[in-house]
Amino acid sequence: MEQVTIFDSTLRDGAQGSDIAFSVEDKLTTVRLLDQLGVQYIEAGNPGSNPKELEFFHRARSLSLTHGKLVAFGSTCRKGVKPEEDENLLSLLEAGTSCCAVFGKCWKFHVDAVLETTEEENLRMIRESCRFLKDHGKEVVFDAEHFFDGYLENKEFAKRAVEAAAEGGADWICLCDTNGGVFPKDAARIVREVLSWIKTPLGVHFHNDCGMAQANSLLAVQEGASQVQGTFLGIGERCGNANLSTIIPVLQLKLGIPCIPQGSLGNLTHCAKELAAIANFDLPETLPFVGESAFSHKAGMHADGVLKTPRSFEQIDPFLVGNTRRFPASEISGRAVVLSKIREIFPSARVDSREVKAVLQEMKELESKGYQFEGADASFELLVRKRLSVFTPFFELIYYHIYTDFSPSDQSLASATVKVRVKGEMQLMAAEGNGPVNALDKALRKALEIFYPVLSKAKLTDYKVRVLDGKNATGSAVRVLITTSDGEKSYTTVGVSNDVVAASWKALEDSMEYLLINQK
Amino acid sequence: MEQVTIFDSTLRDGAQGSDIAFSVEDKLTTVRLLDQLGVQYIEAGNPGSNPKELEFFHRARSLSLTHGKLVAFGSTCRKGVKPEEDENLLSLLEAGTSCCAVFGKCWKFHVDAVLETTEEENLRMIRESCRFLKDHGKEVVFDAEHFFDGYLENKEFAKRAVEAAAEGGADWICLCDTNGGVFPKDAARIVREVLSWIKTPLGVHFHNDCGMAQANSLLAVQEGASQVQGTFLGIGERCGNANLSTIIPVLQLKLGIPCIPQGSLGNLTHCAKELAAIANFDLPETLPFVGESAFSHKAGMHADGVLKTPRSFEQIDPFLVGNTRRFPASEISGRAVVLSKIREIFPSARVDSREVKAVLQEMKELESKGYQFEGADASFELLVRKRLSVFTPFFELIYYHIYTDFSPSDQSLASATVKVRVKGEMQLMAAEGNGPVNALDKALRKALEIFYPVLSKAKLTDYKVRVLDGKNATGSAVRVLITTSDGEKSYTTVGVSNDVVAASWKALEDSMEYLLINQK
Repeated sequence: MEQVTIFDSTLRDGAQGSDIAFSVEDKLTTVRLLDQLGVQYIEAGNPGSNPKELEFFHRARSLSLTHGKLVAFGSTCRKGVKPEEDENLLSLLEAGTSCCAVFGKCWKFHVDAVLETTEEENLRMIRESCRFLKDHGKEVVFDAEHFFDGYLENKEFAKRAVEAAAEGGADWICLCDTNGGVFPKDAARIVREVLSWIKTPLGVHFHNDCGMAQANSLLAVQEGASQVQGTFLGIGERCGNANLSTIIPVLQLKLGIPCIPQGSLGNLTHCAKELAAIANFDLPETLPFVGESAFSHKAGMHADGVLKTPRSFEQIDPFLVGNTRRFPASEISGRAVVLSKIREIFPSARVDSREVKAVLQEMKELESKGYQFEGADASFELLVRKRLSVFTPFFELIYYHIYTDFSPSDQSLASATVKVRVKGEMQLMAAEGNGPVNALDKALRKALEIFYPVLSKAKLTDYKVRVLDGKNATGSAVRVLITTSDGEKSYTTVGVSNDVVAASWKALEDSMEYLLINQK
Repeated sequence: MEQVTIFDSTLRDGAQGSDIAFSVEDKLTTVRLLDQLGVQYIEAGNPGSNPKELEFFHRARSLSLTHGKLVAFGSTCRKGVKPEEDENLLSLLEAGTSCCAVFGKCWKFHVDAVLETTEEENLRMIRESCRFLKDHGKEVVFDAEHFFDGYLENKEFAKRAVEAAAEGGADWICLCDTNGGVFPKDAARIVREVLSWIKTPLGVHFHNDCGMAQANSLLAVQEGASQVQGTFLGIGERCGNANLSTIIPVLQLKLGIPCIPQGSLGNLTHCAKELAAIANFDLPETLPFVGESAFSHKAGMHADGVLKTPRSFEQIDPFLVGNTRRFPASEISGRAVVLSKIREIFPSARVDSREVKAVLQEMKELESKGYQFEGADASFELLVRKRLSVFTPFFELIYYHIYTDFSPSDQSLASATVKVRVKGEMQLMAAEGNGPVNALDKALRKALEIFYPVLSKAKLTDYKVRVLDGKNATGSAVRVLITTSDGEKSYTTVGVSNDVVAASWKALEDSMEYLLINQK
């Protein structure tokens, strides 16, 4: 295989995912990102479905794209309607893209039970729709809907549908596993059989309802398919589509089959993060290649191995896809990981020194109380600094008092009083908030900002509470994680206590201290 | 293939996932859930890694399991050490499980570069470790670490390692794709080749670093492997493990290969939700079979097709795995599901009645504030009773005041004052506790038990806090779930507020009310 063409449907099939909605601006930004990465086909919507879609295509005309071409998506003409009188096909022309994708039915069951027409009429719809778009100068991708299910049930029927598209002049035939239920062996065999009689270049489009969309795509390419459809982050109808951020590095790095410009691969992780931000969801940490944990080594023996030689527990170098190796500090990871983290702060630290042992000992004790430093790097750094005696506290808590009042008529009101000693001076401050933690947070900041105006840059961006061993119910220990942004980067701190307010206090205290250390 | 054995490693390899930490209680609950579902092997930790792990195995002895057997995990003995003197192997005996899994190296590169020993010594470690455990009456699973990478690089070396385990008497040989980089074609071919010379039953353990762990597992089974290792929700080191909640229905429903008792399949989705709650993450909506969106039809044409005939856009009937068809765009689903729940309480409720509409309306409003009644059936029942006017409150809150004091010398002290009206009488009560929520809980119970002694039977058994949209940090809305046991059965209630105390109050109030209704 010399080259595989990547066809991204984030803005069309991806938009059919639950909780996904793209504005016109979102779509324009997404097209630019995918184009910069080097994706060749960017399917961006169905102009016949609603006016917002058509507006997007009109505005998209002003984009100047380097690698990608926009694709407008729609169905073949309706039954009993000529292409030149079919609204949906006319809207594809109106979209003004050089390439159009149209889907048609290849499963006899669907033609009988859903479309409710004859095979002859279905073949006419496919053939004439492709021909119509070709006659208007378009590059045409025929999406053979339910091809795999159809082929498994009635091979000849499915074959005739695809042949009708070829007769109509389609440039690509894309075999779709619309219900996502096809198994790898069948996917590979069917692609192989179709390639034995078809001359048109073949694409594939797999859904992930059996968790096998990537494997099916890869096997199809190994059999000779030359276009892979999918969505960049795997979003899409039901369980989503084949994930292109997985398929691209699999093909390009592991099989040596070019898909995108070689220099672009290093932007893969960045592109995934940007697209997740646009689609407004957290990029799953465990996503292959581009996820936060894809090269994270938590088990002690794995971490030891990777520190000796990365290939021992990594399939590729994370740098190649713009990702980073991580060693989360945790009870499972060994001494080597902790030492390497200590060395990020103190390059000269020795494994057998008294201080390093003291850090390990304290970590172990804190972890037995429910602390977890993985994901709380800032608290870990503070712990190391305190143990290694290179830390002078910026403030000291004398006390806090919090009043939480509630009655059904007045609703809730919380107020906190905080007394801290800062640079030798006592400072008393009070604030009200939504509940006790919010009131405490506000009072502490007001007190400290008098001495450290830089703290006004700190913005808490995430707050998580985890009840540890909930079996003691409201008396259980809780772990609080707070994420803070200083405007440029984010860091996370942790606190544990039987009291959610006290746990939050510890995480808040670390949050302020960490920002102050790094501003000195 | 007559039967495939499911080997779940949620509590071992799963615990190596980022942000995953199980308490001893979490682990005991997880074992019970997997056992009830009918999973045969439940790998639950490495007793040699830390004292908490050993404590779990000691406590687990009192569990009486129906389908599953517990497995303790560890490595073969260290180089130069005899099995009977190896601490890790001794801790496997100490764990007291009838089955042990030990991993050993099968990749020459690893023996040379990581273990730094000779092939002979590696073979001795594998053989003698298996033999030692067999001599102590254990069922032994040999995890052939990096088998696929090792086999691709030096077939004979990998073969000899596995043969050493067989010589040592291992009951199962499990081929591991430890780095998760193996492709489906290679996975299938290697399993086929190994089965041509091995007599020991074969298992497989795939990681998901190329997004192909499920496909590889399926292909291995199709070649003749008889055990699939994985984790129920796919959690695990880096990108996670083969997802058993996908593999079980694929094998059982689509290939007709039994894995778990037929009657258990309908609990699959419920089990996935419970496990996600224990691991404290949101079950990904797009997860095959068990995710919220797995049978959700957003595209208009898909929804229309499914309403005509479900098979048109669904690979299986969602009912078979305990999931539900959803039509998010049209909100058709909501009504039918809610009505069926209302009818559990009021069998005569009619879909078009004013009361049913009012329940639906209120649910919608509450859900938009962050409520979630799935997993909080007791609060849902109270909501229905209140809306259908068959509920008289047992008590009424007048106010609560809570004082939370903290200073580094005195530690924290919280005291709550609660005033309630019960049966026409005012009752004022105060209590101290670990933090504000615990104090409030105690004061409320003391006040109510005077009137309703039956409440002394109520024991809060779990308390969970989830911050919704943490982006507003300490001011974010929080959802509190409280599980209560009346000595016989458990039920869960929910509360949402920007104030963790107020959210907890709502869940507490429902907890008391629900018990009182059911005691009448």
